[in-house]
Amino acid sequence: MKRIVYLLLFVVPVATAQEWPPELTEVWDPEPRMVTPGDGTAPPSDAIVLFDGTSLDAWESARDGSAAKWIVADGAMTVAPRTGDLRTKERFGDIQLHIEFRTPAEVSGEGQGRGNSGVFLQGRYEVQVLDSYGNRTYSNGQVASIYKQHLPMVNAARPPGAWQTYDIFYRAPVFAPDGEVVRKATVTVVHNGVLVQLDAEIQGGTTYTGLPKYEPHGDGPIELQDHGNPVSYRNVWVRRL
Amino acid sequence: MKRIVYLLLFVVPVATAQEWPPELTEVWDPEPRMVTPGDGTAPPSDAIVLFDGTSLDAWESARDGSAAKWIVADGAMTVAPRTGDLRTKERFGDIQLHIEFRTPAEVSGEGQGRGNSGVFLQGRYEVQVLDSYGNRTYSNGQVASIYKQHLPMVNAARPPGAWQTYDIFYRAPVFAPDGEVVRKATVTVVHNGVLVQLDAEIQGGTTYTGLPKYEPHGDGPIELQDHGNPVSYRNVWVRRL
Amino acid sequence: MKRIVYLLLFVVPVATAQEWPPELTEVWDPEPRMVTPGDGTAPPSDAIVLFDGTSLDAWESARDGSAAKWIVADGAMTVAPRTGDLRTKERFGDIQLHIEFRTPAEVSGEGQGRGNSGVFLQGRYEVQVLDSYGNRTYSNGQVASIYKQHLPMVNAARPPGAWQTYDIFYRAPVFAPDGEVVRKATVTVVHNGVLVQLDAEIQGGTTYTGLPKYEPHGDGPIELQDHGNPVSYRNVWVRRL
Amino acid sequence: MKRIVYLLLFVVPVATAQEWPPELTEVWDPEPRMVTPGDGTAPPSDAIVLFDGTSLDAWESARDGSAAKWIVADGAMTVAPRTGDLRTKERFGDIQLHIEFRTPAEVSGEGQGRGNSGVFLQGRYEVQVLDSYGNRTYSNGQVASIYKQHLPMVNAARPPGAWQTYDIFYRAPVFAPDGEVVRKATVTVVHNGVLVQLDAEIQGGTTYTGLPKYEPHGDGPIELQDHGNPVSYRNVWVRRL
Repeated sequence: MKRIVYLLLFVVPVATAQEWPPELTEVWDPEPRMVTPGDGTAPPSDAIVLFDGTSLDAWESARDGSAAKWIVADGAMTVAPRTGDLRTKERFGDIQLHIEFRTPAEVSGEGQGRGNSGVFLQGRYEVQVLDSYGNRTYSNGQVASIYKQHLPMVNAARPPGAWQTYDIFYRAPVFAPDGEVVRKATVTVVHNGVLVQLDAEIQGGTTYTGLPKYEPHGDGPIELQDHGNPVSYRNVWVRRL
Repeated sequence: MKRIVYLLLFVVPVATAQEWPPELTEVWDPEPRMVTPGDGTAPPSDAIVLFDGTSLDAWESARDGSAAKWIVADGAMTVAPRTGDLRTKERFGDIQLHIEFRTPAEVSGEGQGRGNSGVFLQGRYEVQVLDSYGNRTYSNGQVASIYKQHLPMVNAARPPGAWQTYDIFYRAPVFAPDGEVVRKATVTVVHNGVLVQLDAEIQGGTTYTGLPKYEPHGDGPIELQDHGNPVSYRNVWVRRL
Repeated sequence: MKRIVYLLLFVVPVATAQEWPPELTEVWDPEPRMVTPGDGTAPPSDAIVLFDGTSLDAWESARDGSAAKWIVADGAMTVAPRTGDLRTKERFGDIQLHIEFRTPAEVSGEGQGRGNSGVFLQGRYEVQVLDSYGNRTYSNGQVASIYKQHLPMVNAARPPGAWQTYDIFYRAPVFAPDGEVVRKATVTVVHNGVLVQLDAEIQGGTTYTGLPKYEPHGDGPIELQDHGNPVSYRNVWVRRL
Repeated sequence: MKRIVYLLLFVVPVATAQEWPPELTEVWDPEPRMVTPGDGTAPPSDAIVLFDGTSLDAWESARDGSAAKWIVADGAMTVAPRTGDLRTKERFGDIQLHIEFRTPAEVSGEGQGRGNSGVFLQGRYEVQVLDSYGNRTYSNGQVASIYKQHLPMVNAARPPGAWQTYDIFYRAPVFAPDGEVVRKATVTVVHNGVLVQLDAEIQGGTTYTGLPKYEPHGDGPIELQDHGNPVSYRNVWVRRL
């Protein structure tokens, strides 16, 4: 409490609180590292490319870790129905994820049965993929919903057969050693350039029945759902935050 | 407390909590309205275009509401130094903002004196615009910082003279009738496609000296700063959330 | 940008950030107003006394606003079963509430049927009152639960017939003009001097069936439940925060 | 997605969403453990008594861990000026803390120099102890302030020489392995039965100069400050949350 020194320095009366030197509120450390952005939707320099149109090397079967069995053709990877979900071999926490998807041009089925797939963050929290172009279902189950938890602000769907984009900003949940949820997961989703989820608080695993619940976990894979429809993906990249 | 009815309906034992019918967690209302997304960075169907390359009609001088005096040429609007900040005539609360900017190709000055401008949300909260390509300054004052509050996660700057993009998702602060801050403003910023601010909590007006403080306010304009450097803007559109 | 003045004043190099004058972080306004505390659980000087043992003047029937029909005797107010809930005539937002309750010394019934009543904040959010001394029920429905939303951290119940205390610190929800929940209600509950709810986030109205939902509302009464059991209350006071 | 089973069970139309069985929202596990509350301000059955009026066994010098040198007399422990702070030998995370204090009956000094001491949570976050009865100082430095961070809602001080109480409900900060603050510390303080801090978010270590900053840490002691004034303490107990 060496106040004397300061009183000498500070002949300026206290009342003029606005007289702060600007240097006091400058923060020089750390210096943010440089990242070279991509052109348009191309991956930035620090992204991990998960699918560049040619290979499923970054993916494996979510059933048993065996080789990914989806179809790679024309720069896209497409669900081979009944082969099961795919997941990344790598595991992630907080991420920025860019992924493009296309529901079948030839419409078949309705509601949840039409162009259904999904992007599971950390293998547990689903951003729904569905053909929601003129296809009514429950709002918290349509495209860009956090499945059965948060309906999208708007429906920014493109027609069946068109490529669509998701830009997902995800902060993983944090658990205390005893399993308590210290901070829930949150997610922001931009669908075709339109904001549809803003810092939505995820309430637990996205489940078909019952209420969401958290189970403590660490990093997890990005998982793409085989829901029986030949949905395609391309230009998939992720950045660790 | 008409429990009897349910006991009859529910022969399923309570213990099997997983036996929730899936319909219980379906939400059908409201039905999100359709928005037609734009191609690439073009405005979606529900956007308000603030600058399409031809006219400053949506803008006025932030000094006195007089006509905007910046220069429109080659599809860009450029700071005419010393004419003062521009602000939108319209006022906004929660928004998605797309804006593109370019710092001068011809480098002059250094630190805060090089390619300095800024995007003020609600006229108060600055997302810094600066030429931060090989131009060190305090981290919480470089491009994509929330000025003197939050440094960007990374430096995704493009070189001087290149067009750059900001996609900004902003939730306005909420004040109680007595002026208390009920919810601070938050902002997510994507710079050239790279996430740089994720749900950053704004601590009050962004000021050059002293600590940020909130003053209660309602909707406010988007304001672009004249910091004496001929920074350009283009393709500016906003969506109300 | 009048930096020159400060550089003269600040011969101290910027690097020694610790050299902040202590006056900069002193806040003199406002000066908190004086409150004379009570002795023990007696009301402080700024409290509104809702029941001092003698009169139901502060209360009315929650059914229709008619005169309160509960029984006043021996310094307590006691549920007259089937006369309905009581509510305060006055309405409140954020409050500190002290209330004492007693479940019947003569035990009758079990589970939710034993010594059941409740304190409804703003007429909507129930802090459960129940005889939970050796009386198992669902955890999120026992004494000091936020009914069907938050179970208490511990069971600090006193035996039937003993007076018990609740000290409740409640922050009302805030709604945007369009009804959106800007800030959920939160509540801290101290039961018999033991912390049982710490800043629990209320998820909406506490309901017997279905999930809690928020309906926008303004200030509301404190309501005490007639659940058919002769539960008593005394020493009820509230402070507006 | 075995929807068929449920459709058979659920002849009830979906529209009647209110027809949830009440059992679905009952939570039976865990069963909160019993705690026997104390009478008045006496410790509950699960409290750790830190000072019962007779011994400093739970305390040590905060300088070097040597024996506590404060004075025990008349059921109180009193600062022996210039012997330094005391800290608990035990370390804590989230706690409920009851502590009683008394500033000298014989007033000497003014402002921060009068009856100054402090309760440091985890050895870092100070709930100010000061004689603030007719003794003006900066509001965020008076009794019951979170020192230089949060001024108390009201001034519930008792006169010099009177015993006063603090009931403190504290949630420790949580840090990620990389040191990031996942959740800031929060504190609720009841001063002489009057709420003065409600879920105040602590911004970092409470410091005399400069802005608060977090340094990652684990459990920490409760520390009582020797600020040169013979402030006394009694009836100190803590519960782990």
